[in-house]
Amino acid sequence: MGTDEAPAIEVAGAIRAIRELEGDFHIVLVGDEELIRAELGRHEGFSSNRLSIHHAPERIDPRESPASAVRRKRQSSIVIGMKLQQDGDVDAFVSAGSTGAVMAASLFTLRPLPGVHRPAIGTVLPTAKGPALMLDAGANVDCKPSQLVQFAFLGKIYAQDLMGLPNPRIALLNIGEEPEKGDEVSVETHRLLLASGLNFIGNVEGRDIIRGECDVLVCDGFVGNVLLKFYESVAEFTIGLLRKQLADSHADLNFDEVFKVLDYSEYGGAPLLGVNGVSIICHGQSNTKAIRNALGVAAQAVASGMVGHIARELSQDQGTA
Amino acid sequence: MGTDEAPAIEVAGAIRAIRELEGDFHIVLVGDEELIRAELGRHEGFSSNRLSIHHAPERIDPRESPASAVRRKRQSSIVIGMKLQQDGDVDAFVSAGSTGAVMAASLFTLRPLPGVHRPAIGTVLPTAKGPALMLDAGANVDCKPSQLVQFAFLGKIYAQDLMGLPNPRIALLNIGEEPEKGDEVSVETHRLLLASGLNFIGNVEGRDIIRGECDVLVCDGFVGNVLLKFYESVAEFTIGLLRKQLADSHADLNFDEVFKVLDYSEYGGAPLLGVNGVSIICHGQSNTKAIRNALGVAAQAVASGMVGHIARELSQDQGTA
Repeated sequence: MGTDEAPAIEVAGAIRAIRELEGDFHIVLVGDEELIRAELGRHEGFSSNRLSIHHAPERIDPRESPASAVRRKRQSSIVIGMKLQQDGDVDAFVSAGSTGAVMAASLFTLRPLPGVHRPAIGTVLPTAKGPALMLDAGANVDCKPSQLVQFAFLGKIYAQDLMGLPNPRIALLNIGEEPEKGDEVSVETHRLLLASGLNFIGNVEGRDIIRGECDVLVCDGFVGNVLLKFYESVAEFTIGLLRKQLADSHADLNFDEVFKVLDYSEYGGAPLLGVNGVSIICHGQSNTKAIRNALGVAAQAVASGMVGHIARELSQDQGTA
Repeated sequence: MGTDEAPAIEVAGAIRAIRELEGDFHIVLVGDEELIRAELGRHEGFSSNRLSIHHAPERIDPRESPASAVRRKRQSSIVIGMKLQQDGDVDAFVSAGSTGAVMAASLFTLRPLPGVHRPAIGTVLPTAKGPALMLDAGANVDCKPSQLVQFAFLGKIYAQDLMGLPNPRIALLNIGEEPEKGDEVSVETHRLLLASGLNFIGNVEGRDIIRGECDVLVCDGFVGNVLLKFYESVAEFTIGLLRKQLADSHADLNFDEVFKVLDYSEYGGAPLLGVNGVSIICHGQSNTKAIRNALGVAAQAVASGMVGHIARELSQDQGTA
């Protein structure tokens, strides 16, 4: 019930996921049953025993205070969906609703894994050399060096399990390449990452991101959130201008490469990493492709055993972090 | 002597400034006299009594430690150029050399204006609705709320004097619109800006920048630097892909609007605001248009009396900041 056009986008995305993606997953649509049934009815000829509905009468508005909305609206699609995962009825939860509410419900219900100081939102950024994971994208505005190092471990496991990278290149976002650059937190984090045993390639600057210089980019949630929203807006803006020019010109030009690099909906949702479960947060403006891909990421996270890998790695990591 | 192709770019940019820009300014080329003369010789048919050379035998390499290079290389083009301004022989200094060295030389030689806690680098970002000034773009990694409020005043005066905006819209870069969003520094800065008498429109998020939601964007130098370098690289990358597609297709398409929005060389250099003089920092990768425009900005800063306006405003501002 989270997108701006809910549940049309969610239903269409779920149908695309079942039709187009590999893997033997089942999708439970959590929300207003009547609205969802009506929406499903618009997809003539589609029927699948891999899709079911779980009724949730309430809905959290993105403008509500997340923590209090989650406490108050126990019958909301976000709270009920998260409870289904807590009870073991589902293995993962995907939502395009209020980011704050999904985060709060994940933290209250799933709980952080033992040894995890602060779960972080990972987000996949398109780059010239393929996707890179940036974290934290907004869950934690102020971060200690030890927390940033944990983000690196969380990111490493995500890159291994979901991006197919056995030895991902980890970098620290900073304002210069040299170890002594940045503020005190940056300098200390750099030192800890060098000693972490991770494949730490050093600091990268803002200009290195789109060039694909790293696979996992570590930063605090303030700069990560600003950067993510800026990227999305530049991409949307540029694509919008290009599409308009192309439509006006009727020219037979292929801008697939540009679109692909700038189109973040390729990568679906943003995982909340470090909780005891799979929680994927999508944009309120998600399209069906983004929902489809987020469902694919959720299925893959479950199939790969990502949460177990994080639990093992982060409990071992206690000495250094 | 600062660009990657110095002094060719600087000389060509200076000639374009004299040929193309309005205003009765004189340009002194500071650097290796022999190299500069040779470069001027390549521009056949150009001669002007508005261009002269001041010899500086040394050159600071961007990889040198800025503060010690400025102290040691007293005969470098950066130190000599700054001294010319201190002595009143020139009114402004433009350099595409080491950003750190230009900053250090500006602080040591010109000095901060009375009442200015920390000078800040302003940088003009192209947006859908025209240019916006972001500051700080990298001079100060950690900022107190009172310093961020001063950046807002510095930005206001720059927008008034250089961008022709009598009442510029000032915004605080944050991760949400609400006053309570962000870290403690953000919350306190928001409160101070509301009480500052400035035309403060509130917090803006990363996505609002390219939409042109504000004229002056206040942030600390860490996030500003990351954002600036990211923007430049996305712009370069996108423009590169587009130009390639266009060249391959021989299609008669007009992407001027896209290019204009993404082309930061339209706006030349980044002013160091809050020092007792005009100091404009350009990219090492500047092209002649960027140098031309930076020289234009320098001339306009002098003509408008920007430094005097800052001195007046910031000495009055002591009570609130």
